[in-house]
Amino acid sequence: MISTRTQVAIIGGGPSGLLLSQILHRAGIDTVVLERKSREYVLGRIRAGVLEQGLVDMLRGAGVGARMDREGQIHEGFDIAFNRERHHIDLAGLTGGKTVMVYGQTEVTQDLYEARDQMGGIVVDEAENVALHDLTGDAPYVTYEKDGEAHRLDCDFIAGCDGFHGVSRKSIPEGIRQEFERVYPFGWLGVLSETPPVSHELIYSSHERGFALCSMRNNNLSRYYVQVSNNEKVEDWSDERFWEELKSRLPADTAASLVTGPSIEKSIAPLRSFVSEPLSHGRLFLAGDAGHIVPPTGAKGLNLAASDVHYLSEAFIGWYKDGQDGKLNSYSETALKRIWKAMRFSWWMTTILHKFPENGGFGDRIQKTELDYLFSSRAAQVSLAENYVGLPY
Amino acid sequence: MISTRTQVAIIGGGPSGLLLSQILHRAGIDTVVLERKSREYVLGRIRAGVLEQGLVDMLRGAGVGARMDREGQIHEGFDIAFNRERHHIDLAGLTGGKTVMVYGQTEVTQDLYEARDQMGGIVVDEAENVALHDLTGDAPYVTYEKDGEAHRLDCDFIAGCDGFHGVSRKSIPEGIRQEFERVYPFGWLGVLSETPPVSHELIYSSHERGFALCSMRNNNLSRYYVQVSNNEKVEDWSDERFWEELKSRLPADTAASLVTGPSIEKSIAPLRSFVSEPLSHGRLFLAGDAGHIVPPTGAKGLNLAASDVHYLSEAFIGWYKDGQDGKLNSYSETALKRIWKAMRFSWWMTTILHKFPENGGFGDRIQKTELDYLFSSRAAQVSLAENYVGLPY
Repeated sequence: MISTRTQVAIIGGGPSGLLLSQILHRAGIDTVVLERKSREYVLGRIRAGVLEQGLVDMLRGAGVGARMDREGQIHEGFDIAFNRERHHIDLAGLTGGKTVMVYGQTEVTQDLYEARDQMGGIVVDEAENVALHDLTGDAPYVTYEKDGEAHRLDCDFIAGCDGFHGVSRKSIPEGIRQEFERVYPFGWLGVLSETPPVSHELIYSSHERGFALCSMRNNNLSRYYVQVSNNEKVEDWSDERFWEELKSRLPADTAASLVTGPSIEKSIAPLRSFVSEPLSHGRLFLAGDAGHIVPPTGAKGLNLAASDVHYLSEAFIGWYKDGQDGKLNSYSETALKRIWKAMRFSWWMTTILHKFPENGGFGDRIQKTELDYLFSSRAAQVSLAENYVGLPY
Repeated sequence: MISTRTQVAIIGGGPSGLLLSQILHRAGIDTVVLERKSREYVLGRIRAGVLEQGLVDMLRGAGVGARMDREGQIHEGFDIAFNRERHHIDLAGLTGGKTVMVYGQTEVTQDLYEARDQMGGIVVDEAENVALHDLTGDAPYVTYEKDGEAHRLDCDFIAGCDGFHGVSRKSIPEGIRQEFERVYPFGWLGVLSETPPVSHELIYSSHERGFALCSMRNNNLSRYYVQVSNNEKVEDWSDERFWEELKSRLPADTAASLVTGPSIEKSIAPLRSFVSEPLSHGRLFLAGDAGHIVPPTGAKGLNLAASDVHYLSEAFIGWYKDGQDGKLNSYSETALKRIWKAMRFSWWMTTILHKFPENGGFGDRIQKTELDYLFSSRAAQVSLAENYVGLPY
C-alpha cells in the first residue's frame, strides 16, 4: 500500500475535475486527480462545445483560455428551422451583448491537461478500483490501484467529478440520495465530418420527421445530429442514409447547400434528464455529470459542470483561505438552484424541438404553438436567449 | 311553419352571440339571435370576469361599456403565492401600462341584453330543436321551435356561438372536423360569498395540497376556488370545509386576513382544453366555446370568444360593406392562430400552478423550477404578462 496525502482528492479527469484542480492549484490548494481511463481515451471522447460566457471567463481566469481565444468561434446567435423556414435567435441583441463560444469540449480538456502538466499538477490516469472512505468523518481517504499496486490517498475533502457512471455518487448511501429522472423516448445519431459547416451558426431544426441539429467544431469540421428512436442501431445508418435523413429535416435551401462527406465518427447517444440530491455528503462534493445529466439540446452539460466547479472552488477557497465553511455547507443547495433552472431549460428545449410519438394531437399543437409564440414574442425570445447564454452564477 | 329572414343568424345568446349581434347591428347588418335557454337562465350562469384590454375596447366601441367603466375594477397586477410567499406580477409595469378589467361575465351579458333590447335587436330565447341546414350552399337556413311552433330562419350566414354543447359545431361533418383535447385530472370547486375579497388583486396559489385562487366580482362579492380531484362531489364540501381547505393553501398572513361567510353559490367545474378545427364550414362560422374551451387558469375563455367575434365581425363587415370575402375565407385560420396561443398559455398556467398526481419527482421539480425561474426573470414575467393582458388581435 502506497500512502500519499493531498488537500482535495478529485475523482475524475474530465473537464470538471481538471478545471477544479487548476483553479484550486492557482489558489494554493493541493489536489490529486484520479482518472479511471487513459488520457488518450479521455481526449478521444467526442462532446459538444458551446461554452457560456461564465465558463469562458473561468477558463481565461484559470490561465487556460489562450488557445480558445485564438481558435474558438464567438456565436452571436443561432437559427431554429421550423415549417421550412429558418428563424434567427439573436442572442447578442436579446441579452444586451452576451454571446457563446463554440470550442470543442475535447479542446478544453486538452488545454486543461497541458496546463496541469505545466504546473506539475498530479493527474493519475488508469487508476482502477477507486473507492471512497470515511466520508462523514474529518479524515476521508480514497483507495485505488495503479499498475497493480494498492494506493491510499488521504485528504481533507473529496470532489466527485467522475461522471454519471462514476463511483462518487454511488458512495452516498441510497437512503440519503434522492434521484430525479426523465428518460426520453429517442436519442441523437451524430456524425462528425471534415466538411465546412452548412451555416456559420448552429441550426436547430424542428421537423415532422424529427429533430435535427447542424453544429460544428471549426470551419472544416462539422457535427450533425438527427433524432432517432431508442431502438435504432448505428450500424444501420450508412453515411448516405444519414445525409439523406438530415437533408429531409432541413429547409430546402439549407439542405441544398449542405456539403456532405465521409463520417469520421458516428454514434447514437440517448437523451436523459437526471439529478441526484443532495450534491454533498460529509466531506464528499459532487460536480458535473456525477450529480446531474441534461439532454444535449441547449448545450448545458459542460456549462453546468463549470458552474458547479465555480461554486465548489469558491467554497474550498473559503475554507482554506478564510477558515469559513459556509459555502461548503451551502454548496449543494446553491449549485442545485442553478442546476434545476438549466434542467428546466434543457427539458423545455428538448420538448419543443423533438418529435414525441406519445404526444397526441393536442400535445403536437401545443408544441408547434410554443414555436409560433416564440417567433412572435420578443419576451419569449429574451427568455430563451438568457438561458442559452447562461443564467448568472 | 313561420318563415323569417335575416342576414346573419346567430346561434346562442351568450356573450359572444350578443356581442357579435351588437357589433353587426351597429354596422347596419341584420341579425337574429337564437338562444335555447331562457334569459333568466343565461343571466344566472356564474362565470369569471377578467377582461383583456381588447375586449374592454370592443365593449366600449359597441356602446356597452358605460356600466363596466363605472363598476368594473382595473387590475394592474396579480399575485402568485408559492412556498408561503406572495410574488407580485406587475402587469402594467411589465407590459408598458396594459391592465385587465375585473367585471363579471354575467354583467357583460346583462349589458349586452339591455343594449340589444334598446336597439330592437331580435333575441329569441327558449328556441328549441335548433337545426342548421344547407351550410355549404348559398342559402343556408335554420329551423327551430318556439312555444310549440315551427320556425324557419333563412339567412346569408350562420354564426355558431352556442358553446361547447351546442348544435353548431356538431353540424360540421365528422370527417371534416378535427378535435384536439386534453382533460385534466382535476376540477375547480368554486364558492361565491358576499364578503370583501382577501386582496384587491387576484391571488393564484400553487401549493402542495393543490391550486387555489382568490378572486372577486366587486368589493363585497368574493369568488374563491380550490383544485379538487375529479371524483369530488360538491355536497361533500360544507362551507366550513371549503374555507379550511382554502386557508391551508394560502400563505399564513393571507389566510389570517381572509373574511369567510356563507356561500351563495358553490359548484365544481372540470378543466378541459379543447379545439375543433376548422372554425368554418361553408356558410357556418364558429366563435367562442362552440369551437374551443380553455381551462379557467389565465381567464381566457371570454376573451377568446371576444377575439373570435372581432375577426368574425370584421369578416362580415368586409362582405356586406366592401363585397370582399377574403376575411371570411381566412377567418378560421386567423382566429385559430390566436386561439392556439391562448390555449398554450392556459395550458401552461394550469400546468405550473396545479398539483398533478401523475407528475412524479422529476415533473414536480420542473414545475417548481418554472415558478422559481419566473420569479427570477423579468423576461419570463414579461412573457406571462403579455399573455395575461392579451396578445394583440
